Amino acid sequence: MALLRPPLAAAVAALLLLAASAAAAVAAGTVFPGDPPLQLRAQAARRPASSGGGRYAVSAAAAAAAGRNETAAAAAKPFTARYFPQELDHFTFTPNSSALFYQKYLVNDTFWRRSSGAGGDTAGPIFVYTGNEGDIEWFATNTGFMFDIAPRFGAMLVFIEHRFYGESKPFGNDSNSSAEKLGYLTSTQALADFAVLITSLKQNLSAVAAPVVVFGGSYGGMLASWFRLKYPHVTIGAVASSAPILQFDYITSWSSFYDAVSQDYKSESLNCFSVIKAAWDLMDERGSTDAGLLQLSKIFRACKTVKSVYSFRNWLWTAFVYTAMVDYPTPANFLMNLPAYPVKEMCKIIDGFPAGADIVDKAFAAASLYYNYTGDQTCFELEDGGDPHGLSGWGWQACTEMVMPMTISNESMFPPFTFTYEGKSDDCFQSYGVRPRPHWITTEYGGNKIDLVLKRFGSNIIFSNGMRDPWSRGGVLKNISSSIFALVTEKGAHHLDFRSATKDDPDWVVEQRRQEVEIIQGWIDQYNKDIAQMSK
Amino acid sequence: MALLRPPLAAAVAALLLLAASAAAAVAAGTVFPGDPPLQLRAQAARRPASSGGGRYAVSAAAAAAAGRNETAAAAAKPFTARYFPQELDHFTFTPNSSALFYQKYLVNDTFWRRSSGAGGDTAGPIFVYTGNEGDIEWFATNTGFMFDIAPRFGAMLVFIEHRFYGESKPFGNDSNSSAEKLGYLTSTQALADFAVLITSLKQNLSAVAAPVVVFGGSYGGMLASWFRLKYPHVTIGAVASSAPILQFDYITSWSSFYDAVSQDYKSESLNCFSVIKAAWDLMDERGSTDAGLLQLSKIFRACKTVKSVYSFRNWLWTAFVYTAMVDYPTPANFLMNLPAYPVKEMCKIIDGFPAGADIVDKAFAAASLYYNYTGDQTCFELEDGGDPHGLSGWGWQACTEMVMPMTISNESMFPPFTFTYEGKSDDCFQSYGVRPRPHWITTEYGGNKIDLVLKRFGSNIIFSNGMRDPWSRGGVLKNISSSIFALVTEKGAHHLDFRSATKDDPDWVVEQRRQEVEIIQGWIDQYNKDIAQMSK
Repeated sequence: MALLRPPLAAAVAALLLLAASAAAAVAAGTVFPGDPPLQLRAQAARRPASSGGGRYAVSAAAAAAAGRNETAAAAAKPFTARYFPQELDHFTFTPNSSALFYQKYLVNDTFWRRSSGAGGDTAGPIFVYTGNEGDIEWFATNTGFMFDIAPRFGAMLVFIEHRFYGESKPFGNDSNSSAEKLGYLTSTQALADFAVLITSLKQNLSAVAAPVVVFGGSYGGMLASWFRLKYPHVTIGAVASSAPILQFDYITSWSSFYDAVSQDYKSESLNCFSVIKAAWDLMDERGSTDAGLLQLSKIFRACKTVKSVYSFRNWLWTAFVYTAMVDYPTPANFLMNLPAYPVKEMCKIIDGFPAGADIVDKAFAAASLYYNYTGDQTCFELEDGGDPHGLSGWGWQACTEMVMPMTISNESMFPPFTFTYEGKSDDCFQSYGVRPRPHWITTEYGGNKIDLVLKRFGSNIIFSNGMRDPWSRGGVLKNISSSIFALVTEKGAHHLDFRSATKDDPDWVVEQRRQEVEIIQGWIDQYNKDIAQMSK
Repeated sequence: MALLRPPLAAAVAALLLLAASAAAAVAAGTVFPGDPPLQLRAQAARRPASSGGGRYAVSAAAAAAAGRNETAAAAAKPFTARYFPQELDHFTFTPNSSALFYQKYLVNDTFWRRSSGAGGDTAGPIFVYTGNEGDIEWFATNTGFMFDIAPRFGAMLVFIEHRFYGESKPFGNDSNSSAEKLGYLTSTQALADFAVLITSLKQNLSAVAAPVVVFGGSYGGMLASWFRLKYPHVTIGAVASSAPILQFDYITSWSSFYDAVSQDYKSESLNCFSVIKAAWDLMDERGSTDAGLLQLSKIFRACKTVKSVYSFRNWLWTAFVYTAMVDYPTPANFLMNLPAYPVKEMCKIIDGFPAGADIVDKAFAAASLYYNYTGDQTCFELEDGGDPHGLSGWGWQACTEMVMPMTISNESMFPPFTFTYEGKSDDCFQSYGVRPRPHWITTEYGGNKIDLVLKRFGSNIIFSNGMRDPWSRGGVLKNISSSIFALVTEKGAHHLDFRSATKDDPDWVVEQRRQEVEIIQGWIDQYNKDIAQMSK
């Protein structure tokens, strides 16, 4: 079968060139829960030592302080990395399937209440983060909620890296080189990895009876909820934050994601929305000549002259979409260092321009907030890919199992785009030599009529969503049963509840986290009660 | 990797020769729910045309009549065979994984109540048999219960063949030739096959909302219950008859199976039990010389002189174990044509011998009931393998996923046998070039503390067991929740409830089936009520 074109950024670029509406194609083909397109992730990691003053370096002192805190935390590293020998393929017994690879996981047992071994004395719970599409230390660092609540539960914390990401590559650096290897990168294998690892870990800890609660955000949240549904014997409950498990097939409107992003901006100001909506055509027009590209490169402060207008579009698109996702009510640094309510801040920038100012200037200025809030970028690498969090497997996953159809409607602030399964399949075949199984996720995990199915099946899942996050539209937004809850915050963003508590958190976040703690406590109490009853 | 020694019977023979306690090794290595060791199945199919009078041809007229009925039913074939293009590997996307094979399934829609398409008019249910380790027509023919109840439910019947059995061989006749091919024979793949096929079938029937209930017996019952647990979005409930889902790891006592068989015989007569218990050593002694083997061959009416004493032991072992499993209260022909209560009949034969008669003679006479109840065998093929129902994949499954540890205690009527995981692993590696993953089943499907796990998770499963069936000991024998039931009959045998109703059925079987119908009706009513409520 076809070799992949290395690196994956090239595959994305191929999609770019193939699609009629190229910027939209990037949007539809490379968005995934929580992260920007592959070629646009480098900036976060590669801050130049020289700290040139960016045009919109507002509130730089505060941002720098936040940055220092995170650096200090990272230096302390409140976890220990371990490695577990994992089988390559849990679901077949072909000769290759039993090859072992080492799966990384992080452990913090500072607060864990060990069992004394006496009867009736149960061990503290094990809180497991079901890792998603990136290196696990990044997710652990951005899931402060688990560290915050561990002491009160006497919980051990475990963060398991998803196969094919970070250091958990079954074929080392060669893991992404071909469909023969990448073929083993699937959600079902990942769930089985979690089951095998957790089961073995509990045995080794002599804590077989310790209750396990799984946590996950974004794709990790999908995995957490699916894990509870598929492995109820391994976990007593799941907290799935911003998990768009209904973003498949025809369950959720295909235009909902970009409509939601647009709504975020429109809710701040109609002018903001209209400026961004008008920018795309203008850029296309100007970018149609070499002179125009040169002019745009200057406006966009490009480190090198940009060769394709799509790079500008893509750069803007990333800023607007991902800022909507991480529209947190406090300063945060998940994808990028950003102030509180960054969408509002972007719109303030746009609305603050004098009458008659250039639309592209406005759009660039707003987007700069995303890329350069700390003000240390002297220029922008608009065409340079990178993969600071080791995320490069998602392109493959989106071309195999994770087919989330997305269109862009005329009413949105983005250039319209139409999705077809045929087009997606052809693009994937061209890029990876693989064709998606677009209805597999709903066949394997369900999703259609989820309220009907789970009303009388399963238990102990929290689906949390913030409506500022466009992924919320593919999430579970209504309670399903007396133990499958939807916690929805109007002003929340992408797995906001999983971030460390800060003194500036609005009441509604504090309340959401309080509810989660209460529900989790209920699961553990019930479990211990059941155990005590049965051992009588 | 190592090629298999073709045919599989040779692999079994290898196990036989390897093990210290060879007969026990056959027992432990080749028993599977519902069927005798591979090399002992040929007799059922190859009845010679000439009908010589067997020594124990009791009640031959009745048996012959039963045989005619089944032949007539088979000729009518109350189902149509269809073939579904199925993917080889649902859980990876390696280049091989998307290869298609044709999976056979049987359909009977005589009684199906189609939806008129009007609102509120739901289609009749679809009853699906989740096929196990044999050709699907055999299971369909032996699951008359589904045909019996289809009219009252307006149900469509579907029987899906398990991959690698019958006509559903992904690599045709070459499918069992190597671990590269057999590697795709796993329970998880089989469940996914069912999910994909059922989902597609419902779409093609324009009956997406029709409720699906799955049925399975023995290993098929394990699959049915696991299917409900893993695919609640595809089926609303499962009837798992004689499904030993707890016969793994350390959940069920390893000696329970053979203790239960022994108990069946002991409950008929202590003499019967003692005669059988004494036979093994006697045969070993006599079979240690060529003259002894010749003498035993005569006693056993062997068509050809037998070369190993283990063949006699194996032949007897099969008769006693499988007769216990199918100790039905009415004449039946599942594995063999047998009278009602065949264990009682066997013990009557043993107890009917004059004082001082030879123990081996008695054991042979009793076992002959199993092989020759109809009296048409002029001699017995004691060393000849065969595979009339296309079952040869089970050896592989027992060496990969389906590791059910079994020992034989000193208190049983069989020669003692000790099981070790290491020994099992080495035997499997020698036979198939594969090593089992002995704890995989409980990791993937659970089983430990099943009452604790399912008390608050899942719903709508019936586990039915008959205590005469030694597999019952590995089954779920107590109600778990208000919708996960255990229906247990003291005098029932291996998936007796799934057999066609007959006028001679004892009241307790009639009652068990009535309860099953009532529960299934409750699931369907509830589902239709939920649907109606939600569409309001």
